[in-house]
Amino acid sequence: MAEVHGTRRNRLRERCAATGVDAALVTRPANVRYLTGAAPPGAALLIGPGPEDTLVHLRPPPDDPGDPGDRGDRGAERPPEDLRATSLPTADGDAAVAAADLAREQRAERLAVEEHHLTVARHRAVRSVAQDLPIADLGNAVEQLRLVKDEQEIAALRIAAEIADQALGELLESILVGRTERHLALELERRLVDHGADGPAFPTSVGTGPHSGTARHVPTDRRVEEGDFLTVRLGACYRGYRCEVGRTFVIGTAPAAWQVELYDLVFDAQRAGREALVPGVACRDVDRATRRPLTAAGHADGLAPWSGHGVGLEIDEDPQLSPAAMGKLDACVPVTVEPGVHLPGRGGVRIDDTLVVRPAADGGPELLTITTKELLAL
Amino acid sequence: MAEVHGTRRNRLRERCAATGVDAALVTRPANVRYLTGAAPPGAALLIGPGPEDTLVHLRPPPDDPGDPGDRGDRGAERPPEDLRATSLPTADGDAAVAAADLAREQRAERLAVEEHHLTVARHRAVRSVAQDLPIADLGNAVEQLRLVKDEQEIAALRIAAEIADQALGELLESILVGRTERHLALELERRLVDHGADGPAFPTSVGTGPHSGTARHVPTDRRVEEGDFLTVRLGACYRGYRCEVGRTFVIGTAPAAWQVELYDLVFDAQRAGREALVPGVACRDVDRATRRPLTAAGHADGLAPWSGHGVGLEIDEDPQLSPAAMGKLDACVPVTVEPGVHLPGRGGVRIDDTLVVRPAADGGPELLTITTKELLAL
Repeated sequence: MAEVHGTRRNRLRERCAATGVDAALVTRPANVRYLTGAAPPGAALLIGPGPEDTLVHLRPPPDDPGDPGDRGDRGAERPPEDLRATSLPTADGDAAVAAADLAREQRAERLAVEEHHLTVARHRAVRSVAQDLPIADLGNAVEQLRLVKDEQEIAALRIAAEIADQALGELLESILVGRTERHLALELERRLVDHGADGPAFPTSVGTGPHSGTARHVPTDRRVEEGDFLTVRLGACYRGYRCEVGRTFVIGTAPAAWQVELYDLVFDAQRAGREALVPGVACRDVDRATRRPLTAAGHADGLAPWSGHGVGLEIDEDPQLSPAAMGKLDACVPVTVEPGVHLPGRGGVRIDDTLVVRPAADGGPELLTITTKELLAL
Repeated sequence: MAEVHGTRRNRLRERCAATGVDAALVTRPANVRYLTGAAPPGAALLIGPGPEDTLVHLRPPPDDPGDPGDRGDRGAERPPEDLRATSLPTADGDAAVAAADLAREQRAERLAVEEHHLTVARHRAVRSVAQDLPIADLGNAVEQLRLVKDEQEIAALRIAAEIADQALGELLESILVGRTERHLALELERRLVDHGADGPAFPTSVGTGPHSGTARHVPTDRRVEEGDFLTVRLGACYRGYRCEVGRTFVIGTAPAAWQVELYDLVFDAQRAGREALVPGVACRDVDRATRRPLTAAGHADGLAPWSGHGVGLEIDEDPQLSPAAMGKLDACVPVTVEPGVHLPGRGGVRIDDTLVVRPAADGGPELLTITTKELLAL
């Protein structure tokens, strides 16, 4: 594990060197984690100058991280041994400022910072301590490195997906009528942890009846009723890697005609999106393939602004599958495909998978979330 | 409720006017919520210029927010009717940029932004659209307004504390030996929601045996054993207001002598902190009163950098009760007092209350978290 993080840091070092930057200050937590294996709150990572990197902690790590008999903290692992680590002497400090100071002491020539993460106030403090050391923008360099996942990352996503599928599967075997959205969401989250997740990848969404099919439904005390559409969206976080799955069910013995029709429409749209996942495809073309059936059926208004997004250490990361997205999908990029239609007052359908883009020669996209997409009457 | 938010916005407007600022752009979510009653993701609030304010949403609110038969979303309420609301035409936009554009259109003379929240990249985009409109720093103006709570806010905190006490009380009546930290934490969080919380105020902490008494323990699969100290720290969020409570118990029939001694020490330190809560007291003096008994007993190393902090819409807000803290406590400021000692390899004690500073004439600080602090053997 230590080797992979060192390799990633070297890759960043090389990218920076190509633009005349010999030191980089990484502060976005997911980026720090990607490059070190750990995400201590408030920590800042200094890459270079030179071959050595330093992780500046906000405060010393706790004395007692847990004995070997535990399965230990399922959260961030401890940083690798080959990374220098320091911590601030006082709790009031800013690790980014300390890291910039260190870069200056080590005679860095040009320090790049994450201008999309540092606040104006922190950036000012960093510039102040850097003095004559010029500060540049690192931009999305680390996010770019994170796009294509290696096989260990995909393995973690695969397990996260299995955990989410298991939790969902168990729920479907239980009685649903009469239970509230909120309790079902809590139950799902408990099962995620029971099956080995660090925790939920994001707050679980459960919407029933008129709440079904909405993109961002926060569970309420509404109870599941016969005849409802029930939409569930959940995800597991495993070793920091997050995936998501979303399914829509009908409660009762048989769906109504309008429900079958709407479900088939969204299913077809989602399938079109999945089938568009080929290495080299433009992100906006995947979005278009997913969106088109829904727009053609008259549901253009109210559609989500995107059809899917990348997943990894964050549940919502590059690339975006949206109409204005630039860029193409490479093999080994995991994305969601998650169209939905919501009819106000009636409810709707949302179907969401996490897949890994793979070459057609390897069988096309690898579906991670394998819960059936057949419309189940529960 | 609409009236209180409008009043708060007017207070901010007046504060700004005193420094020549006729428009303010608020983006920190807790601050947006304080001033409008709502916290839509990515929203930006424009105060002024003039008497009217605008909440710029990132995207239109969902069509179907829930029928009146539900208890509805326990999350942020809908913004008051007297606040103008707009949303961005595309999903790619930045509400802060749109709000700055609106300020410019409305001929603002000076726009203050939250430099401790806006990233460098966003601030650049705001400046770019603002053109000739000068941009200043709003600083902590809203956080300052939030310090002293009104009686509705304190009522919400009181209920949040009751919910946390209830959840904790129920847990204490159940069997603990053999259960994992993780399961106990999940159980507590479920009970918080059962008792009416929006959700937990923060991730629940449960530490047993050598894990007890640590400031930031993430629950593991370690199981509770006879003879353990068991430390629990949890909090409820109610109508957005968050409080916390922490207690330490002994598992089994009777504590060991070292456990009684350590518990009494931390209890005395925490009581000293509570008793120091008088309107007008310096924050650092409350910290000193809490810290002194622990330092005197030889536990200076490893103490947390603060003895407590404010609570409200955020679980950790101004004021800080720490050695370097400036400022004094006013009446109606809610704070925690939460000292602890951890002996590596053995465990420790942490006792945490949320209290509201009240005048001595009114009976001294109002204790919100009333679970007994007597050392219980469970």
